[in-house]
Amino acid sequence: MSLFAPPLNRLIEALRLLPGVGPKSAQRMAFHLLEKDRQGALVLAGALRDALEILHHCQDCRMYCEGDRCPICRSSHRDEGLLCVVETPADVVAIENAGFYRGKYFVLMGHLSPLDGVGPEELGLDRFSERLRRGVREVILATNPTVEGEATAHYLAAQAAQIGVHASRIAHGVPMGGELTYVDSGTLSHAFSGRHRVAQTDPGSHPADESF
Amino acid sequence: MSLFAPPLNRLIEALRLLPGVGPKSAQRMAFHLLEKDRQGALVLAGALRDALEILHHCQDCRMYCEGDRCPICRSSHRDEGLLCVVETPADVVAIENAGFYRGKYFVLMGHLSPLDGVGPEELGLDRFSERLRRGVREVILATNPTVEGEATAHYLAAQAAQIGVHASRIAHGVPMGGELTYVDSGTLSHAFSGRHRVAQTDPGSHPADESF
Repeated sequence: MSLFAPPLNRLIEALRLLPGVGPKSAQRMAFHLLEKDRQGALVLAGALRDALEILHHCQDCRMYCEGDRCPICRSSHRDEGLLCVVETPADVVAIENAGFYRGKYFVLMGHLSPLDGVGPEELGLDRFSERLRRGVREVILATNPTVEGEATAHYLAAQAAQIGVHASRIAHGVPMGGELTYVDSGTLSHAFSGRHRVAQTDPGSHPADESF
Repeated sequence: MSLFAPPLNRLIEALRLLPGVGPKSAQRMAFHLLEKDRQGALVLAGALRDALEILHHCQDCRMYCEGDRCPICRSSHRDEGLLCVVETPADVVAIENAGFYRGKYFVLMGHLSPLDGVGPEELGLDRFSERLRRGVREVILATNPTVEGEATAHYLAAQAAQIGVHASRIAHGVPMGGELTYVDSGTLSHAFSGRHRVAQTDPGSHPADESF
């Protein structure tokens, strides 16, 4: 790699800091920017500095925002009593894009992972319990169905129970449009253990209200 | 996407300017930099600006370098009479890493592609013919074996012939360690048409010197 001039080597090394970018991709990116998109390189450099300077965590939900609080937390049209806990800002986007949820969020920016040094403090859980005390009826635990996500959900449920807030976990099972043949055994086992009785006679009862 | 604060949106859009980075990867990169590697983001921003400011094309070979001429062109230990033409700086690195070539280079920074507006001027071919006139014995055309690379090689060979410089094309065939079963038909056809007579008796003759 010493064939390249030092600034080029430094650029390639810096691009490798991006997740999922190996040495060949970094080289390709560097040459692309230098040769075909010099304006883009300037835009990227500016966007990086701006983002670092301007963006802060929302005081309420820890989402990235420009001021003290993010637009969702500032909104008076959303249910203050419902709090959905997710791992990343991208999860908020996924849920918002689905368009059914009208409550507020709390973004952990990760999950509990003691081996990586991520404990309750790193996830801002002091702010989470403070948030729960401000009139939250139900906390919906929407962390990922991974080992760490489940552990985090358990920890948060215990915290909510201490404060006396009802905690629920989103359902895990066969995805809509999915075929049983291609679903993994863990998901199938979750789908069976989380099965609901099908309402047969009373049109007033909601099938999801009763579980075996 | 309007859920994110504008500086975050701008960063995600800027990261999408990198080749091979789609919306999801760009989001992941942005969150990674903001959450886990803020120092890395600063390093990347600085490296981008430095590279744009400091790097220039080498006057002789068009490789990226800091001064007027790159270390390979400045070197007096390399054969001035051999000129290898490649499409990208990464090709120079590949050939240098192989370690057998002791001549000089000319980097096209692309290939002829009239539809994309890349003609002889964009590839610096005026500088190429000027370079050929400075005591080059043989020009080795090492452009990629693609339609554009072949067309570029033909064009360069004609240019070299005009100046009276011998031009050669690197061999194309079955790669070393490759298996015939898995080689595509175009490569196989090249390997057959470019076959060489095997020297049988005279130990002095090199098999590659004789072709059918």
